[in-house]
Amino acid sequence: MTDPSLLDVRVAIGGLAFFQKMMAGELPPPPLVALLGFRLVEVESGRVVFAGTPAETFYNGLGVAHGGYAATMLDSALGCAINSMMPPGPPGRLFTTLELKINYTRPLRRDVGEVRCEAKVIHAGNRTATSEGRIVDAAGKIYAHGTTTCIVIERTA
Amino acid sequence: MTDPSLLDVRVAIGGLAFFQKMMAGELPPPPLVALLGFRLVEVESGRVVFAGTPAETFYNGLGVAHGGYAATMLDSALGCAINSMMPPGPPGRLFTTLELKINYTRPLRRDVGEVRCEAKVIHAGNRTATSEGRIVDAAGKIYAHGTTTCIVIERTA
Amino acid sequence: MTDPSLLDVRVAIGGLAFFQKMMAGELPPPPLVALLGFRLVEVESGRVVFAGTPAETFYNGLGVAHGGYAATMLDSALGCAINSMMPPGPPGRLFTTLELKINYTRPLRRDVGEVRCEAKVIHAGNRTATSEGRIVDAAGKIYAHGTTTCIVIERTA
Amino acid sequence: MTDPSLLDVRVAIGGLAFFQKMMAGELPPPPLVALLGFRLVEVESGRVVFAGTPAETFYNGLGVAHGGYAATMLDSALGCAINSMMPPGPPGRLFTTLELKINYTRPLRRDVGEVRCEAKVIHAGNRTATSEGRIVDAAGKIYAHGTTTCIVIERTA
Repeated sequence: MTDPSLLDVRVAIGGLAFFQKMMAGELPPPPLVALLGFRLVEVESGRVVFAGTPAETFYNGLGVAHGGYAATMLDSALGCAINSMMPPGPPGRLFTTLELKINYTRPLRRDVGEVRCEAKVIHAGNRTATSEGRIVDAAGKIYAHGTTTCIVIERTA
Repeated sequence: MTDPSLLDVRVAIGGLAFFQKMMAGELPPPPLVALLGFRLVEVESGRVVFAGTPAETFYNGLGVAHGGYAATMLDSALGCAINSMMPPGPPGRLFTTLELKINYTRPLRRDVGEVRCEAKVIHAGNRTATSEGRIVDAAGKIYAHGTTTCIVIERTA
Repeated sequence: MTDPSLLDVRVAIGGLAFFQKMMAGELPPPPLVALLGFRLVEVESGRVVFAGTPAETFYNGLGVAHGGYAATMLDSALGCAINSMMPPGPPGRLFTTLELKINYTRPLRRDVGEVRCEAKVIHAGNRTATSEGRIVDAAGKIYAHGTTTCIVIERTA
Repeated sequence: MTDPSLLDVRVAIGGLAFFQKMMAGELPPPPLVALLGFRLVEVESGRVVFAGTPAETFYNGLGVAHGGYAATMLDSALGCAINSMMPPGPPGRLFTTLELKINYTRPLRRDVGEVRCEAKVIHAGNRTATSEGRIVDAAGKIYAHGTTTCIVIERTA
């Protein structure tokens, strides 16, 4: 399902061009991102925005969106923000998530409507990078926020 | 989709009995838990185990399970471990996730097969509680681990 | 050493006025803050700045500032930012740290000179509040950043 | 103050032997560890225990130990547990803290007496390692717990 050649494309053209193509629908979103209905709606170097709607399909047993819903949305945006800064190869570079920290500040329910998850890079180093993000509704209310630490993937030819 | 009466049942019979019924298939799993194929396979007071298989449907763009997969599995188990200690009501008590912290230690791929996520309570207070959990394969290798802080839900009659 | 009446003052006049007095030297800094040489240099509602110099007294065994140095500076600023929003009493309110998350992005050494730790509130709720902060040098380079979750202290008369 | 040759010793003899010498008083503790009165009291490969007493010198403005006190104690123990597994060189290896996460479960006051901070390695990889730790009193009550992610230091000759 994940086409190895997609990774080659990403490394070859760099993160920003890759995510721009994904936003334009020229490249498919990752499977779990598609399953949860997240859409990449803005991307620039070091900053991305995803959008999605917390439908009942994504609820936990308490009648609100499962914590995994916001965690997945934030993990997508936080990692994307970092990878959007990766230059075209060769050799190209990829970062993967080493750790993720989420705060839940308000319950997310279907009637909140579409929410946006904006993520921005804090620190971009050679081996590690960090970013921060927030999930907000149309009025700017914060439902969850988080940070991540990503690490360069060592690619063995 | 989330039946309010399910919450009433949970508060009335207490967390342990509730999750035992869920494990026995007498009560439905929460929607997102079902969507990601997680199954509650062990429960005792203060400790639960979920199981699941990191299928390609849950991958990110790097050809491994999305960070949100492990985050959702851990959030489910970590919260359940805490709520399994809640006594039957009235008044009964419920805890919800205030924050979640995940470490990713190895890539999760389909060929790892079924993984288990075991969570245990660290601290159970009146207002807040914490728990820790790990996702391991059949050989005991750790793929992700995490902790959570939960807070009592204030129920307004 | 910690004068109970200082807490009474804080609750009576509110967080902002209290920290303004501390900044002006009319009230003493907390003992550990004094021990590590941190000074409150800016305060407004929901935002504070501490300053300090990573002297060798605060080093770990690797010849750089101990992780606890940045953690203490951030914990001070993150908690202060939240408490600066607390209105004068009675009844008054106080928040205490429930959890703290720090990222270390560059080694802090004496030759970096004085660093500033700016913290800002992200979410201020009735029971919990969150804030974020960064430690930067004079050129704006980030050495560490973090977030906290604070919880209202239940005061029993 | 931090003797570069101490680092050379550590890399040469390996983490376990180095910390055993420190525990025996043959090598000095790091400056901040000494300043806060922490003592290394147990060490084996992948597990260490520090002890200390939360004196008023280490208080915050609320009349309890500052969050930085437990954070420093945990950071010391968490990093030490990982470095205790580093083999003697050459080349030898050192890990430094990339991120730190602390939960505060009970207030620490002087009258709690001496507390112990036990830390154990969770994951030890080539580039990154994680550990977990808890601060407990003589009766085993938990006052704080945490985890860390450390990363190999790249040493440039």
